[in-house]
Amino acid sequence: MGAARFLRGLLAVVPPSSVTAIVNVADDTELHGLHISPDIDTVTYTLADAIDPDRGWGLRDETWHAMTMFERYGNPSWFNLGDKDLATHIVRTERLRAGQPLSEVTAHLARAWDLECTLLPVTDDRLRTFVTTEHGDLSFQEYFVGRQHAVPITAVRFEGAERARPAPGVLDALADADRIVVAPSNPIVSIGPLLAVDGIRDALVEHRSRVVAVSPIIAGAALKGPADRMLTELGHEPSVVGVARLYRDVAATLVIDDADAARAPEVEAEGMACIVTGTVMSDAERAAGLARAVLAATESPR
Amino acid sequence: MGAARFLRGLLAVVPPSSVTAIVNVADDTELHGLHISPDIDTVTYTLADAIDPDRGWGLRDETWHAMTMFERYGNPSWFNLGDKDLATHIVRTERLRAGQPLSEVTAHLARAWDLECTLLPVTDDRLRTFVTTEHGDLSFQEYFVGRQHAVPITAVRFEGAERARPAPGVLDALADADRIVVAPSNPIVSIGPLLAVDGIRDALVEHRSRVVAVSPIIAGAALKGPADRMLTELGHEPSVVGVARLYRDVAATLVIDDADAARAPEVEAEGMACIVTGTVMSDAERAAGLARAVLAATESPR
Repeated sequence: MGAARFLRGLLAVVPPSSVTAIVNVADDTELHGLHISPDIDTVTYTLADAIDPDRGWGLRDETWHAMTMFERYGNPSWFNLGDKDLATHIVRTERLRAGQPLSEVTAHLARAWDLECTLLPVTDDRLRTFVTTEHGDLSFQEYFVGRQHAVPITAVRFEGAERARPAPGVLDALADADRIVVAPSNPIVSIGPLLAVDGIRDALVEHRSRVVAVSPIIAGAALKGPADRMLTELGHEPSVVGVARLYRDVAATLVIDDADAARAPEVEAEGMACIVTGTVMSDAERAAGLARAVLAATESPR
Repeated sequence: MGAARFLRGLLAVVPPSSVTAIVNVADDTELHGLHISPDIDTVTYTLADAIDPDRGWGLRDETWHAMTMFERYGNPSWFNLGDKDLATHIVRTERLRAGQPLSEVTAHLARAWDLECTLLPVTDDRLRTFVTTEHGDLSFQEYFVGRQHAVPITAVRFEGAERARPAPGVLDALADADRIVVAPSNPIVSIGPLLAVDGIRDALVEHRSRVVAVSPIIAGAALKGPADRMLTELGHEPSVVGVARLYRDVAATLVIDDADAARAPEVEAEGMACIVTGTVMSDAERAAGLARAVLAATESPR
C-alpha cells in the first residue's frame, strides 16, 4: 500500500507526533460478524513494522488455522484472515458493539502498537465503496479480493457519503496542518472516498496551496493494484496528466516520477506545480527521500 | 469432561442417531465480545475426535497466536482460546447476533463436525452459574478458570433459571427416551443448571424409572475438577451416598464404581437401585463398557 509506505518514509524525516494520517474506511467490510478495516490495519501494521512484507497486508509470521475452521463451518473463505490478525478484528468489533466510535477504537489499537503519529479514520460513519460491473454491483472487497480486481468497472459509488461526517479531529488536522499530502494511492477508490466525505474536499480547496499530491501512476501504470485500469475504465487518462486533472482543484502541487519527467509541462498546464523525483519506494531510504521531496515541494506557511 | 467421555462410549454401543445429548450452558461466557459455550464445545470436539486429549478442552494441534494479540490490546488473557477454537466462537456469535437461537447454532456446528447424535443446549435462554466466595460472587469461568476453582464457595445460583425455558426438543427427548442418563458430571454446576430449567426436573421425576445416574464421585473424590470439594462446601457428603441423596428424586438407579461397592447398601437405603461397575473411563473400551452397564441398568420400557 503506497500510502502506508509513504507514511513510514515520512515518519523517518519528521517528528512522528506531528503527523496525522487520515485513512480511508470505504474498503471496510463485515465478515464472520467482524468489522474489518483493511486500510487502517495496513497503515497500523506497516508503521508498527509488523506488516508481512511479501503480501503487503496482514501480519508477519502469520498462521491461518482459523480459516480452515471457517471453511468447515461453511463461512466465506475467499477473504483470508490470519490468526493474529483476527484478534484485531475481534477487538475492534467488540469495542464498536460497545458503542465506541471507530476513531477511538483506531486510536486504541494504534497505541497498542506504540504508534506515535495520529491515525484517524476519515469518518466514524458507515462509508462503503461499491463498483458497478457486468456482474452487478460489488462491494469493494468482493471486487478487489473476491474477483482480484480482474473485472472491468463502469461506475464507482461511495454508499453513505451523503450522510458521513468527518471523524473528530479530521477537519482540525486539515485546517492546522503545515502541509497536506495526498498519498500515492488509488485516486478513485482510496482517495475518492475521503474527498466524498462532507467538508473534506472543501477543506483541501481552501488550503490548496499547502496540498501536495503524489501520483500513484508511473509511466502510465500503477505499481500495484488496478488504479491504471480503473482510471481508463472510468474515462480518465491513466497517466500523471490524468491524475493532475483529478487533483488540480484540491492540490497545488503534483509530485511525479522521474520516468514521467517529459510530461511535467502537461501537468503544469493543468494548473499545478510539478515536482519530478524518484517516487518508487522500493526501500525505506527511497521512501524517506520521497517524503523529503514532498515536504520541500510546499513551503511551510508558518 | 466425564459427560463427553461417557457420550463417546455410549455412541460406540448404540446407533448414534438414537442419542440426544442435553448440554449445560450455564458455564457459557462472553469474552472479547464472543459467545463461548465451553460445555457444548467440549462435547462437540470430543465426539468429533478433535478434542485435545491432554488438556481435555479445546482442539488438538491448536495454536495460540491470537492470544498474544489480545494481550497486546489489553483484552483479558486469563481464558485461553486457541486459534482454531476462536473460529467456533466467532461463528456462534455471528449467528446468535443474526437472531438464530443457540440450539440452531449448536446443530449447525455439530453438523459441520459430522456428529450423528443430536446435541441440544438445555435452553436457548440466558442461564449463568455464579458462585459465592469470600471474594464475592464470581461467574463460573471466573471461578473455574480464573481462580482455578481453588477458592471455597458458600453458595451457587443459576442466574436466569426462573425465566429459562427448555430449548426446542429437550422435553420431547426426555418424554420419548427409552432411557435417560444423568452423566458422570459435577452434580452442582453441571447437572444442577439443567435441573433448574423449568420443566426438566419435573420430566425426570415423571420418568424416574427410566433415569439412571452415574456417580462422578469415586471413593470420595472427583476424578477431575472440584465436584468433591463443592459438595463438602455446600453441606453434602462427598461420596456416592451424598450423590444418591441429590439424585434420588429424579433417578431410580445410581451407577457407582467398584471402589465404592461397600456403600451400595447405603445408596439403596436412599431409595435408589445401585449398580456397581467400573466407572473410570480411562480408554474408549472402558467408556463403552460403562455405557453398556448403564443401558443394562434400566429396562427399556418399549
